Amino acid sequence: MTASIIDGKIIAAELRGRVAAEVARVKSEHGVTPGLAVVLVGSDPASEVYVRSKHKQTQEAGMASFEHKLPADVAQADLIALVQKLNTDPTVHGILVQLPLPKGLDTDAVVNAIDPAKDVDGLHPTNAGRLASGMPALSPCTPLGCIILTKSVHKSLEGMNAIVIGRSNLVGRPLVQLLLNENATVTIAHSKSRDLAKLCAQADLVYAAVGRPEMVRGDWIKPGATVIDVGINRLPGAEGKTRLVGDVAYQEALKTAGAITPVPGGVGQMTVACLLVNTLRAACAIHKLAAPAV
Amino acid sequence: MTASIIDGKIIAAELRGRVAAEVARVKSEHGVTPGLAVVLVGSDPASEVYVRSKHKQTQEAGMASFEHKLPADVAQADLIALVQKLNTDPTVHGILVQLPLPKGLDTDAVVNAIDPAKDVDGLHPTNAGRLASGMPALSPCTPLGCIILTKSVHKSLEGMNAIVIGRSNLVGRPLVQLLLNENATVTIAHSKSRDLAKLCAQADLVYAAVGRPEMVRGDWIKPGATVIDVGINRLPGAEGKTRLVGDVAYQEALKTAGAITPVPGGVGQMTVACLLVNTLRAACAIHKLAAPAV
Repeated sequence: MTASIIDGKIIAAELRGRVAAEVARVKSEHGVTPGLAVVLVGSDPASEVYVRSKHKQTQEAGMASFEHKLPADVAQADLIALVQKLNTDPTVHGILVQLPLPKGLDTDAVVNAIDPAKDVDGLHPTNAGRLASGMPALSPCTPLGCIILTKSVHKSLEGMNAIVIGRSNLVGRPLVQLLLNENATVTIAHSKSRDLAKLCAQADLVYAAVGRPEMVRGDWIKPGATVIDVGINRLPGAEGKTRLVGDVAYQEALKTAGAITPVPGGVGQMTVACLLVNTLRAACAIHKLAAPAV
Repeated sequence: MTASIIDGKIIAAELRGRVAAEVARVKSEHGVTPGLAVVLVGSDPASEVYVRSKHKQTQEAGMASFEHKLPADVAQADLIALVQKLNTDPTVHGILVQLPLPKGLDTDAVVNAIDPAKDVDGLHPTNAGRLASGMPALSPCTPLGCIILTKSVHKSLEGMNAIVIGRSNLVGRPLVQLLLNENATVTIAHSKSRDLAKLCAQADLVYAAVGRPEMVRGDWIKPGATVIDVGINRLPGAEGKTRLVGDVAYQEALKTAGAITPVPGGVGQMTVACLLVNTLRAACAIHKLAAPAV
């Protein structure tokens, strides 16, 4: 058996299309243009690439996009003052402070300053708490993308056994909550877990989010399982180049899994699309409109 | 093999003793007397019993105990005004609003009005979020009691396989977070889970918190596993009386488990003791003292 490939590029494009349609509807029916403000501090090249990509996709979805660039040596108080200004700006429905912040800035204090209703990265403790309590919440984008990819294979996850490997605040922990919301049975494993191979072999759904290249081997995968690989690891490739690999040994897993996300071209494609989803949802919630159909 | 009994009564008494010793130390070294305010609305007999028990145990631990009784028809605004007054009262370090509230009062709004630093019931979304993010937090008392009971058997839970059956905000969900903090591998199962018996049979630690009498059968338990029964169910007994049973079929499980909590006399004993722990912890945190040794 060879697994079917879950094509993040196509699924993300479809999702962006649905977002754009809903944005158009919300604009015409309610006169609301969802707006996303992205704050970039300093000039980290990777962060600049991400911010440009977010800017472009936000505009393509018909939303307003606001970019704020601050120097790396900005005072903490000035950064927080900007966040507070965006909190009260009625044209802004989503606020994203690009992480990591330069040294000397207190990330927690900055994230905590964001109005939870506009926290489209889902990092504010209030959103984490609402998510952990099964209440409506803005969820971090990557785990949201994992759920959408899984549901491209399985319409319902109810009663399925899922394993989440990795317990980060950005991916593993919120992913557990989203899977519980889908009525899956969830096991959360991590660096201290024993006999991961055996735990993994019982799962219908495998989420690898540990940041260790090809750690999950093909013979860990239950035949027919769906495998979502969140890892993006850079390894030395041919001719002095680098190559990207996930946390799953892809070629091995292909032989056992029922469906699998490639790296690149899988989860990574979904993150910005889910940021658009969150911004649209935040705009609708702030304006007390029905939740959008995305 | 017959399981050893985890005696909640003895363990709770020991815990109260440690709390009392730390309260005495904090008083003499820092001049701080931890204080717990309990708010009771209406006159539900069961709630009155709980509140009296909390009052007595708080005083016995050397803490200040404040009782506030409001009529069942109190206005929402007046109840919230009382909570806000307690938030700013420097002699109060813990605030507990006895639940359930009478009809017509908005529980979420009341809980959300409590200063998270004084939220000794651990119900405020900020505490749920901090707990879900692996940050220091005030955790709900019953799951805290479950961890203490487990650690009376196992010094370290690292790498053990735990199953939590039930996903309530009061018990199951926060218990998962506390188990993760202990580096256990955690499976969370619930009413939609398939083949619970098999899931359960793989666990070194079983937590039953579903509220269904004797649902977990003896042959679900891995030989030697530790079983913590959170359920308290009232069944008809002999001579028209009622009897209390847990979520685990105790007599069956006794034969397989390595250690087990009885019902009554297990988890139920721990809840108020853990409330004292939380109040002491809150007092130390508010006064910026080192965390107490409890």
